[in-house]
Order: sequence, then structure tokens, then C-alpha cells
Amino acid sequence: MATVGIVMGSDSDMPVMAKAAAMLEDFGVDYEMRIISAHREPQELVEWAGHAQEKGMKVIIAGAGMAAALPGMCAALFDLPVIGIPMYSKSLGGNDALYSIVQMPGGVPVATVAIDGAKNAALLAIEMLAISDEGLHEKIRAFRAKQKADVIKKDARLQETGAANYSN
Amino acid sequence: MATVGIVMGSDSDMPVMAKAAAMLEDFGVDYEMRIISAHREPQELVEWAGHAQEKGMKVIIAGAGMAAALPGMCAALFDLPVIGIPMYSKSLGGNDALYSIVQMPGGVPVATVAIDGAKNAALLAIEMLAISDEGLHEKIRAFRAKQKADVIKKDARLQETGAANYSN
Amino acid sequence: MATVGIVMGSDSDMPVMAKAAAMLEDFGVDYEMRIISAHREPQELVEWAGHAQEKGMKVIIAGAGMAAALPGMCAALFDLPVIGIPMYSKSLGGNDALYSIVQMPGGVPVATVAIDGAKNAALLAIEMLAISDEGLHEKIRAFRAKQKADVIKKDARLQETGAANYSN
Amino acid sequence: MATVGIVMGSDSDMPVMAKAAAMLEDFGVDYEMRIISAHREPQELVEWAGHAQEKGMKVIIAGAGMAAALPGMCAALFDLPVIGIPMYSKSLGGNDALYSIVQMPGGVPVATVAIDGAKNAALLAIEMLAISDEGLHEKIRAFRAKQKADVIKKDARLQETGAANYSN
Amino acid sequence: MATVGIVMGSDSDMPVMAKAAAMLEDFGVDYEMRIISAHREPQELVEWAGHAQEKGMKVIIAGAGMAAALPGMCAALFDLPVIGIPMYSKSLGGNDALYSIVQMPGGVPVATVAIDGAKNAALLAIEMLAISDEGLHEKIRAFRAKQKADVIKKDARLQETGAANYSN
Amino acid sequence: MATVGIVMGSDSDMPVMAKAAAMLEDFGVDYEMRIISAHREPQELVEWAGHAQEKGMKVIIAGAGMAAALPGMCAALFDLPVIGIPMYSKSLGGNDALYSIVQMPGGVPVATVAIDGAKNAALLAIEMLAISDEGLHEKIRAFRAKQKADVIKKDARLQETGAANYSN
Amino acid sequence: MATVGIVMGSDSDMPVMAKAAAMLEDFGVDYEMRIISAHREPQELVEWAGHAQEKGMKVIIAGAGMAAALPGMCAALFDLPVIGIPMYSKSLGGNDALYSIVQMPGGVPVATVAIDGAKNAALLAIEMLAISDEGLHEKIRAFRAKQKADVIKKDARLQETGAANYSN
Amino acid sequence: MATVGIVMGSDSDMPVMAKAAAMLEDFGVDYEMRIISAHREPQELVEWAGHAQEKGMKVIIAGAGMAAALPGMCAALFDLPVIGIPMYSKSLGGNDALYSIVQMPGGVPVATVAIDGAKNAALLAIEMLAISDEGLHEKIRAFRAKQKADVIKKDARLQETGAANYSN
Repeated sequence: MATVGIVMGSDSDMPVMAKAAAMLEDFGVDYEMRIISAHREPQELVEWAGHAQEKGMKVIIAGAGMAAALPGMCAALFDLPVIGIPMYSKSLGGNDALYSIVQMPGGVPVATVAIDGAKNAALLAIEMLAISDEGLHEKIRAFRAKQKADVIKKDARLQETGAANYSN
Repeated sequence: MATVGIVMGSDSDMPVMAKAAAMLEDFGVDYEMRIISAHREPQELVEWAGHAQEKGMKVIIAGAGMAAALPGMCAALFDLPVIGIPMYSKSLGGNDALYSIVQMPGGVPVATVAIDGAKNAALLAIEMLAISDEGLHEKIRAFRAKQKADVIKKDARLQETGAANYSN
Repeated sequence: MATVGIVMGSDSDMPVMAKAAAMLEDFGVDYEMRIISAHREPQELVEWAGHAQEKGMKVIIAGAGMAAALPGMCAALFDLPVIGIPMYSKSLGGNDALYSIVQMPGGVPVATVAIDGAKNAALLAIEMLAISDEGLHEKIRAFRAKQKADVIKKDARLQETGAANYSN
Repeated sequence: MATVGIVMGSDSDMPVMAKAAAMLEDFGVDYEMRIISAHREPQELVEWAGHAQEKGMKVIIAGAGMAAALPGMCAALFDLPVIGIPMYSKSLGGNDALYSIVQMPGGVPVATVAIDGAKNAALLAIEMLAISDEGLHEKIRAFRAKQKADVIKKDARLQETGAANYSN
Repeated sequence: MATVGIVMGSDSDMPVMAKAAAMLEDFGVDYEMRIISAHREPQELVEWAGHAQEKGMKVIIAGAGMAAALPGMCAALFDLPVIGIPMYSKSLGGNDALYSIVQMPGGVPVATVAIDGAKNAALLAIEMLAISDEGLHEKIRAFRAKQKADVIKKDARLQETGAANYSN
Repeated sequence: MATVGIVMGSDSDMPVMAKAAAMLEDFGVDYEMRIISAHREPQELVEWAGHAQEKGMKVIIAGAGMAAALPGMCAALFDLPVIGIPMYSKSLGGNDALYSIVQMPGGVPVATVAIDGAKNAALLAIEMLAISDEGLHEKIRAFRAKQKADVIKKDARLQETGAANYSN
Repeated sequence: MATVGIVMGSDSDMPVMAKAAAMLEDFGVDYEMRIISAHREPQELVEWAGHAQEKGMKVIIAGAGMAAALPGMCAALFDLPVIGIPMYSKSLGGNDALYSIVQMPGGVPVATVAIDGAKNAALLAIEMLAISDEGLHEKIRAFRAKQKADVIKKDARLQETGAANYSN
Repeated sequence: MATVGIVMGSDSDMPVMAKAAAMLEDFGVDYEMRIISAHREPQELVEWAGHAQEKGMKVIIAGAGMAAALPGMCAALFDLPVIGIPMYSKSLGGNDALYSIVQMPGGVPVATVAIDGAKNAALLAIEMLAISDEGLHEKIRAFRAKQKADVIKKDARLQETGAANYSN
């Protein structure tokens, strides 16, 4: 059984959501990814929530755009931590999805990340799992060390090239 | 069986939502009013939708604030016209609920009215029912005539008092 | 006589508005589509409203951008349900049209859909007509079943390809 | 016949709109003030526009809140300069009315002033009339001189009291 | 001497501002167009205001982007009607310029038009001049009649082509 | 050693943040609450992060207003899940804090909840801990059942009183 | 001669601006505070700028609300660092003043602080002066140490009282 | 030792930040440019702040996007003037970074410039240094004179070409 459930309401969100899957794979965390629309097939969402919870899923990542109900409905249906990813859209820039996901009423939290922040959603899920998985916690430390080293390498390159030539 | 279903996610929305009920009563339209939270009791919402539709409900009015999922979930669960009322809130002024309700994805419309616009939500429901109810249509015409007469009366008073004394 | 009136203020709105017409055609609902500008020819709008109502039009769909007065003026001139579609524009992303359409004063509702939400505007009109047209109601159920099946099909494809290969 | 027409859609706008009237009185400009709702009595607005224009009105000042259609409809009905005043409202702070008034399409301008800026609307009307009325132009210069003198007086008081004691 | 002064703060605004000039030319209104930056050469602005007013200029059109001080400073320096055009910019979509221009303090109005609304700014100037110029007023009526005829022509074309083929 | 760290940048945030503490107490989760300002004492924050992590803290809850750097800096300093609470403020309504907390760059997530959403922050922390603590998971289920029962009770009361009398 | 010039456009800004004066006094920095309106008396602003610069003023602090031109015009008239303070206003919460002050065009910077951030404006001025005044720099360090100590004291009190009793 | 420190959190900001460096070079001000991420390597930022301040750095310029913590953390770590540059981003247009940088709490100011305003950040730093460096002050005057001359040249060209031909 997968530890993390990733769900999106439309396959137009796939280019963003696939980054969450890739990050989980990098950390060796197994996941189940689904396309289920809260607005187009609410009963399927209810059913999936029931099965997934029974089978031992631990964290949910849900991405949605516009009137983004999916993350909140996952928070309603799962008694697990739910992470929400607001999707960018041309008209309101993702502000609509951000408000629809983060402004949850008391009692039903969604852990919201940045607009299109699928990579961070996966990292957050990993951090949650690492609370009780020291091996995963160690991988997070390694990830962060590498991330830091990457910035240091870029800074070193800047010291060689100077600002004017850096981007060439 | 009630013709119109009015639903809100929290009784803190009652001062606004009661205006929708009052307007329906003025027009002699019977309604059923419920407090059902999409986020706190999703299964109850699914059940109510099933029963209500079976029993012949015609239009749904749903009010919600913040990450206002209720109107959209009603649109998902009912194959009836659903009218959404975004609730004012102190932090974002109701902009959060407005975006959460109006920005529905293709295929699942919510007829959205102004922030705290419960009176207009009821009128919209009445207009929908009046498509096939000439008696109701006549009442709408009378309501509009009265509404127009009220403005004309105020204008007449202004012509007497002048701008400076009008508000005293 | 057409059952639904579709009106836009400028033919620059046609690429969006044509989607409402196409959707009505799919459902076999006859419509009359007009280009009438509330701001450039208000008298024509008044005349059209008079004729259309006399001849038995049932629902109005109005799309407009920027200081989008057309939907609200239709709500003023017709005692029928009026559906408003805010148009996207580069500068304010459609937020200007959204506010201009949804924030109607008490007594004169406009059923507002998402920015550029012409497809949903048509569906909403169909739902309104279906209140007293069981054949149409049946078509809505079929549309929704197909819509649901489409998502299920995409989800099935995802289970085969996996996230990384889905978009190829 | 009045030179300036002042119109508002609801008498709830009177506390703001009365300031425009008072300013015109201070400058000795005669005006006609009306309460006419574009959304509740569109035909009355059309009629008033016809009469007013015939009788020689020169400038229109229109105030409205929320989906503020009145100023734009005046611009559609009058071939005179129309000045629009967006009204403050609790939920969106007047941003809705501002967008609804200022974002007019090409060909139908509304001269928009600040949210609740009724005093400036009157001044703008006076400036327009002063283009061909040197006496009025002279009064504007006097008004501006007094306005400047008032600030200078306050500054002088500040030099005496110092910052800490100024507000006591 | 020119009747209308057009001023912009940067020649990057020229593609928009040239539309105001073209519209004035269509109406046979002479104008003087200047590039003067309120922020980069405030003294030049003061001098121009002095000269222009002396020589008989009647209306000012000022366009500016971002922290758009130019229209407001023109309103401070000229005791003439000043029309402000907020310029679109990528980051804030022109909302910054709109607020900077329209939210003028009491006593110093700027007649603000839509973001990038240079055509309307010119029309507004023409309407102001037409208060005391019946020939110009007649041209406005002709312009509006043509504008209306254009929409009617498009509507007629739509009735022939239908929605699906209109845009081809 | 405390399982959850609660930190705020200023004691003006205490009325909101105390709700997170109360909720943790209700669930029997021990916590350490600190007032440490990222902007006024960055070194103290670094030190606290070092000690807390060493001593076995599992989840961090950080609340901050305006340019709310504290949650993000906690995410930088702890390799634990960090939950951020944006604080309401009068000028921008909490939108400033919301953007400052939720829009984290890739690699350093903050799990953001609603403006002033301290109660939900605590619940989210509890859900994270419950991933590996079945007793806590059971308490979440009980909390949710009670929450649902409360809404059902309110709905029952509404059915007795009706809309008009509910709020009395 | 004063080292710092503080200027505001209206004495309604005094309750906020007085905090800048008080802070400068605490640091022993002499200042001249003026009420000069960019929009109501532009020539006075030009004159003051000329005199102040001649007499050796080093830094300007300018506060303004709404279409806040004053800070930008100071940046145009002084070749000194200019610090701008956007004022809160009811309708747009200070967002109008913020955009009007911070979005300056290239070549004419304004150092913008938070809405109503007068205290920080003064601190920023002091930091600028401290670049070449080691005594002042020392006072900044002391101020910061005290500021840090204040937070530490509050945290210590929290450890004694606990969250629930802190605010009593 | 460099007089100005320029720091950015990611090398994706380089195209903007390089303009600050170029401007400093034009004025002959030496600088040190670094890529240090507040969120990915907070300890490095603390260390750099310690060294830089010891070695005599006078002004800091920090650019960051989204939840832009870097400028505020520099303000926390340096007791020097810190200038913040909010970076444009697609989703929220840079409004997120603007709020994250400008809305600093009392006691820890950041001198914020426009979105992507790197050139102005450098000019502001130069103005600060010029308080005690008359040679630099002279260069600012020359820069401003040239800037003014450039606008005058463009205006002169406009007088030759006219509006219609200017952009060709």
C-alpha cells in the first residue's frame, strides 16, 4: 500500500503535480497518484478516501486550481494530514486557488504550500513521515546539505565571473 | 416537499442567510433550510443531496465563507441550479469566499451573487422557478414595480428637502 | 422564438461567448445571439429586452469585460434570470469585470460564473430550463455521467503510464 | 435649468453625494440632484437623460457603489462629460465600484475620481465649466489660494507647537 | 496656441499616448504633446504649466505608469481640468498607476480613465471643450452614431454567420 | 522535552497563538511556547532551533504578521515540519503575512494555514504526530465526531426555531 | 540647521508622523518638520527643497496617503536619500499609498517603509546618518540590544505565566 | 573591503540584480556581490553578516522573490541600512515579494524599492554614501542632469517627428 496519496482534479495539473511524484521517488517514498475531481465525481472521492485510509495511507497531497475544493474536501474525508497545492491560472494568477485552499474553517486544516509548489508539497509530506522514520530524516538532512552546497557552488562561480558575465 | 433548499456551513452565517429565507417567504415559495458543513460532515451533505433531489427540490441556495466549498460541492452533488453566496469576513473582506465560489471549473456551474447577497440569491431562485410559474413571474413584476416606486418616492423627498437636509 | 438570449457588448468577446452557443446546441436548446453594447447603444438594449421578453425568451446570458455593465443592465431590463460572464483582460485579469458583474445591489441579481466561464453559463441556463423540462434534466444527467467517465478514463490512463510519462 | 446634474443610485449614498452639492453651491453653480437607479429603474434614467440634455445640462456627476453601473450608463446616455464617484463599501473597500466605473470601454469615457471623492467630482465639474466661464475660473483660483493658505496656516501652527503637541 | 496639452513622463508610454493625439486630430482639436517627467525634471513641468496656462491651454491629458505622479502634479500646477491615464505594467498590471492617479486628495481632482485608456482621455477632453463649442458637440454626436452603427453592423454579420463561424 | 514548539515574533500575537496551545492541551500533546523574533533576535532563533531539535522536538508552529519571516526562517533552521500562521493586520488584512509565509521557495516548505488559523495549526501538528501515534489518531477521530455532532445539533435547533428566530 | 527633514502633506497624518519625530529625538538627531502638500502647494515644496538642501539637510522623510505623490516629488527635488511612509486609509487600507510611493521609475528612488511605518522611517534615516557618525552607530547598537532584551523579557514572562494567563 | 554588499537568494535573480552592480560600477563604488539564501543556508547569512560588518561594509542591497525573507533577515543581522528589491514572479506579479519586504515590523526597517527596481536600489545606496562623500554627491548631481537631458532630448525629437511617427 502507498504511504502518500497524490490527487489532482484535472490532468491539466499534471505538469505541476508530476514534480511532487518525482520528489517522492527521489526519497524512496511510495505513493499512489490519482485524478479524481471533487466537483465532477464527489462520490468517487468519498470512496477513494475510505479505501485509502483503510489500507494505511499516511499523508495526502492534493492540487487544484480556481475554486480549488479538492484539498479541503480531502481534509474533510481523511483524518490524515492533507497538503494543498494551489494551481496558477491566467486570470487571477492562482490567487483564487490559494484563497480556496488556505482559508479553511476551524477544525479542518489544509497545509497549504506556494502556488504551483508541488515540490515543496512532497518535501512537507516527507518531513511529516520522517517524524517517525529516522532513515527518512537522514535523507532530508542530506537533501538540505546538497541544496546548500548548490547555492554555495553558484556563489563561488559568481566570485569568478562577476555579475556582468554570470548569466552568459 | 420544499421547492428551494437553503444550506449554510455554519450558524454564524445565519444573520445573512435568514434574509434569503425571508425573501422566499415574501414570495410564498416554500423552502427547507439546513446547517450542513461540507468540511465537517461531507457524508451528511451527500445524503441530504440524495434525499432532497429525490423528493423534488428544484433550486439550491448555499452560503459559505472563507474557503467556501459548500456551494461548489452542492453543484457537484445536485443536478439542479445552485446559487452561491460568498460571506464577508474581516481578514479578506469576502474576496476569499467570492473566488472560492465563482471560479468553478467547466461543467459544474455555481450561480454566484454578491458578497453577503442573500436577498439576491433568493430573488434569483424565484426568477428560476418563475420560468415555469406565471403566478410567480407576476409577483416578480410587482416586486420590481414596488422597488422602482420606492426609489421614486425617495427622489421625490429629495426634491422637497434638498441635499443638505435629506439625511436629517 | 429562442429560449435563451446570448448577448455580448463587443465582438472581441466572441471566442469566449461562442462556447456558450456551442454548449446550448449540444443540448438542443435554441438561442438568439446578439452583439449589443450597453455603453454604445443603450436604447437598442432596451428595445431588444422589450421584444425578447414579449416573444417568450426564458433566460439571458450576458458576457462583458472591464466595467462590465451589460449583465447588470440586462438584469435591470429583463424580469428573467440573467447569467453574467466576466471577460479576462490583460491589465486586471478579469477582476474588474468580475466585480462589475457579481457585486449587484439588492433586488437585481446577476448569476455570475467564472472569468471566461461561458461553458458554465450555458450549463446554468440549461439547468434553469430543466426545472420544468424533464427531457432536458435527463440530458444534464447524461452530460454529467460522461464528464465523470472522462475523468475516470484519464485516471485509468495515469495508472498505466505513471506520472512521469502521462504528459508525453 | 440646472447646469450640473448630480445623480446617485440609492439614498444610502447621500452622505457622500451631498458634499458634491455643497461644493457646487459654494461656487454658485446651479445643479439638479436626483436619485435614479440604473439597475432598478433604467427607463427613468433614459428619460431623465433625454430631458436633461434637451434643457441644457452641461456636466453630469454620478455616484454609485458595488457593481456601479450608473456612471457608465450616464456616459452612454448623455453626450456630455460624465464624472463618476465610486462609493466605499465594507466588503471590498470600494475597489469594486472603482473598477466598475473607471474601466470603461473605448468610446464611452467616465472621468473617475477617488473612492468617496464627491468634493473632487464637483471641483472637476466646475473646472470643466470654467473652460468657457472666466468668472468661475477666477473662483477656482481663489479656492486654490485659500486651500494653499490653509495648509500654510497649519504648518505655521506646527512650527509653534512642535510635533508632540500638535494634535492636542 | 494648442487647446489641449498632452504630456507623458517617458517615451515608453508613446504607443498608448499616440492614440490620444490621433483621436484629437480626428476631431480637429489642436494639441501640444510633450515628454516631461515629473520625477526627473520637476522644474520643467512647473515652467511648462506656467507657459501653457498663460497661452490659453484649456485641458491637460497626462499619462504615466507605476508611481504615476505626473497627472496629479499637473492637477496641482494647472487650474484646468486634468485627465489622467494609468499605464499598464507587467508586475502590477497597471493597478499601481491607477491608484496613484485616481486616489487624489480633496481639492485637486484628476479625471481618471481606464488603464491604457488614451482614446477615452481624448474623448473626455473633447466633451469638455464641447460644453462651449456646439460644432465640436455635433462631431461627438456623429462619432457616437458611427460607433453605434459599427456595433450594429457587427451584429448583423453575426446574424448571417452564426456564432461558430463569426471569428473565421 | 516538548513535542511541539510554538513560536511567535511578538506578544501582540498571543491572543491568536494561545488558541494553538489550548488545542494541544486538549489533545494532551506537550509543547514549548516561545516569543522569539526572527527580525529582532535572529541569533536567539538559531540557538533555539539547535537546542530544540537536539532535544527531540517533532513539529514547529510559528505565527507572525506583516513581513512574516519567522515561519520561513524556522523552516530554514529546523529539518522538521513547520506550520505557519499568518496574522491579521488592519492595513492589508493579513494578506501580507499570508504571502510572506505561503510563497516559500522550492526546498524549504512551510505548511500554511488560514489567517489567524491557530486552532487549525495545532490540529495539523496533531495530525502529523498521529501518523505514528494511534492513540492520538483515535483522539482526532473523536474530535471530528464531536465537531460533526455540534453542527448536527445546531441544525436540529434550526429545524425547531426556524430561520427568523434562530439568532434570538 | 536640521539634519533630517520630515514632511507630510496634511496634518491628518500627524498622529503617525509624530512617531518619526519622537524617534529622532530619542537618538538626539535634530530635524525640521513641515506640513507641505505636493498637490496643494507645489511651489512651496520646490522652494523648501531648494532652501533645505542649501542649508545642509541630509535625509528626507516624507509621509503621504492615497495618491501619495509627496515622497516621489521629494525624491525628484532633493538629491538626497528620501524615505517614504505610506499612510493607512479606510478604503484601500494603504495599498494605494504603498503603490504610489514604492513603484518609482528608474533614476528616482524612494526608500519605502511599511504602511504607517513612521518609527522605521526614522530608524532608517538614523542608519543612513550613522554611516559616517560612529556615535550614532553606537546608539543604534544600544537600541537594538534593548529591543532584543525587551523580547527576551516578554518570553521570560511567558515561561512563568503560560499561554493561557499571559494576556491577563 | 567593499563598501556595498549586494546579496540575492538565488541566481535566477541575477538578470535583475546585475543592474544594481552595473550602476554601482558607473559611480565608482566598490561592492561585493553574493548569492546566499536566507532559507537554504541561514548560517552562511549570519556568518557573512558578521564578517562584512567587521570589515567595514556600509550599505546592504538584498533582492528576493516570493516569500522574500532575505532583505528582512539582512536588516536583522546588519546594523546598517538595508535596501530591499522585490522580484517579479508570474503568479502574483511580485506583490508577494513586495509585501514580504516592505511590511517590516517596528525597529527593523528595510528601505524598499519598486518590483525589479535594482537600478534604484543602487542609486539609493549611492545617495546614502554621498551623505558623507561630497565627490559622490557631485556624481549624483551629474547623473540627474544627464537623466534630465535625456528626457529633454526625447521631447525635442517628439517636437520634430510628431506623435504618429515617433515610435518608427
